[in-house]
Amino acid sequence: MAAWGERLAGVRGVLLDISGVLYDGGEGGGAAIAGSVEAVARLKRSRLKVRFCTNESQKSRADLVGLLRRLGFDVSEGEVTAPAPAACLILKQRGLRPHLLVHDGVRSEFDQIDTSNPNCVVIADAGEGFSYQNMNKAFQVLMELENPVLFSLGKGRYYKETSGLMLDVGPYMKALEYACGIEAEVVGKPSPEFFKSALQEMGVEAHEAIMIGDDIVGDVGGAQRYGMRALQVRTGKFRPSDEPTLPPS
Amino acid sequence: MAAWGERLAGVRGVLLDISGVLYDGGEGGGAAIAGSVEAVARLKRSRLKVRFCTNESQKSRADLVGLLRRLGFDVSEGEVTAPAPAACLILKQRGLRPHLLVHDGVRSEFDQIDTSNPNCVVIADAGEGFSYQNMNKAFQVLMELENPVLFSLGKGRYYKETSGLMLDVGPYMKALEYACGIEAEVVGKPSPEFFKSALQEMGVEAHEAIMIGDDIVGDVGGAQRYGMRALQVRTGKFRPSDEPTLPPS
Repeated sequence: MAAWGERLAGVRGVLLDISGVLYDGGEGGGAAIAGSVEAVARLKRSRLKVRFCTNESQKSRADLVGLLRRLGFDVSEGEVTAPAPAACLILKQRGLRPHLLVHDGVRSEFDQIDTSNPNCVVIADAGEGFSYQNMNKAFQVLMELENPVLFSLGKGRYYKETSGLMLDVGPYMKALEYACGIEAEVVGKPSPEFFKSALQEMGVEAHEAIMIGDDIVGDVGGAQRYGMRALQVRTGKFRPSDEPTLPPS
Repeated sequence: MAAWGERLAGVRGVLLDISGVLYDGGEGGGAAIAGSVEAVARLKRSRLKVRFCTNESQKSRADLVGLLRRLGFDVSEGEVTAPAPAACLILKQRGLRPHLLVHDGVRSEFDQIDTSNPNCVVIADAGEGFSYQNMNKAFQVLMELENPVLFSLGKGRYYKETSGLMLDVGPYMKALEYACGIEAEVVGKPSPEFFKSALQEMGVEAHEAIMIGDDIVGDVGGAQRYGMRALQVRTGKFRPSDEPTLPPS
C-alpha cells in the first residue's frame, strides 16, 4: 500500500460527509463522533480547502448547521452542499411543480417553490413520513402524469443513528421506481452533478480533491467515478463487509 | 388472430385471479365486477375445472371466501390457492421462524408457525401496516441475520380498489431488497412453484390450463412462462399500456 504522503499528493480540497463521519443522529439531535470536532478544526487550520458535502435531507441547512455548531463544529451554512437547495435549482430551471414527500424539517427549503397542481414528485429522507398513505399519494400523483418525473434526494440504503441502522430514502425511491415502472433522477451523492457543484463552490478540480465519507457507494464510489480520491471512515454505517478482502500477505 | 375455439382447444382447467377480475376491494369490502358472478357460475356448470389462484395476502382464505360469497360468488375455501398457506408450508419444511410484516387480517394463517427469535422475514400486502417503523424493524431483523432470507407473498406493483390504485407488496419487497442487498423469494404468482401447486390441486397439466387475470406480469407473464395459456381482462389494474401495440392492419 502506498504511503499516505504519496496517496494524498496534490490534494488541495477536502469534501467531508456529515452523518456518520462528523456525528451520528439520534435522540436529542445526536452525538459527535470521537475526534471529529478536532479533525475539522485541524483541517481548517491547514492549507486545505474544506467543504461539507451531505445527502442530509431531513433537515434544512440552517438546522443542520445549528446542530453541528452546538456539537462544537466550526461550520457555516455557506460551506454546506446539500440536496434540497440543489433540487430547488433544478425544479426552477425546468419549470416543475413538485408534490413533496419530505420531512417537515426540510420543508422550509422549498418555501419559494410552487407546489400547486404538481407535475413531478420529490422524495427525501422522510423518516416516519414514509407512511403507506404518503407513499400511496406520491405513487398516485406519478401514475396520473403522462411523463412521470421522480426526484430522489440521495439514494442511500440506510444510515446509522445512535439507536441503530435506519432506512434512508433509497429503498423508498426503489419502491416508487418499481411501482411506476420509471427511473428516478437522483439529486445528491453519488450524482456527478452534485460533486461538480460542490467542487465548483470550493474552487478545486476533481483530481485535486478527496471525499471522506462512511458510504461505500454514495461517497467513495461516487467520488471515484467523478475522478476524485476517496476515503471511507470506519464510523457511521461502515460495515466490515464494505472492505474488499485482501489476500493473505 | 386465431378464433376463440382454436385458442382454447384442449383447455380442461381455468385458473381465475380474484382481485380485479371477480371484484374490486374497497369500502365495505368492495364490489363485484359486472358479469363476474354469472361468469363463475357458468364456468362451474361447464365441463371445465375451475380453481381460484390469488395473490391476496391481506385476508385469510376464510375471510376472502366469506366476502366473495356475500358478493354472490359460488366459491369454497378448498378451491382457493393463496400465498400465505403456501408460505407456511415452506417455513415448516425449512425450519424457519419468521418475523411477520403482514396485515392483521391474514395473521391467523400463521397461527401454527413459531415466530420466536426470527431467522427470516415474511412480508405481505400489509397496507397501512407498511409504516416506516414496521419497515425499519423488518430491515433491522434482516441486517442482523448472517444469511438474510426474505419471503414476499407476491410481488405485485399495485392493485385497484374502488377508490383508486393502491401500492401492493412488490414495491416494499424492492425496498427491502435494495436496503439489505439481497433478493427476495416470491411466494405466489408469478412463481412457478405457485402455479404448479394450483395445477396439482386442480389435477390439470399446464398445457391444458388457462389463467385469467388482470396483471400482465403476475398473471399473464407468469402463467405463460409456466407453459399455460393466459388471458388478461380489461378490469382491475388493467391499463391500455399493458397491451402490445399492433401494427396497422
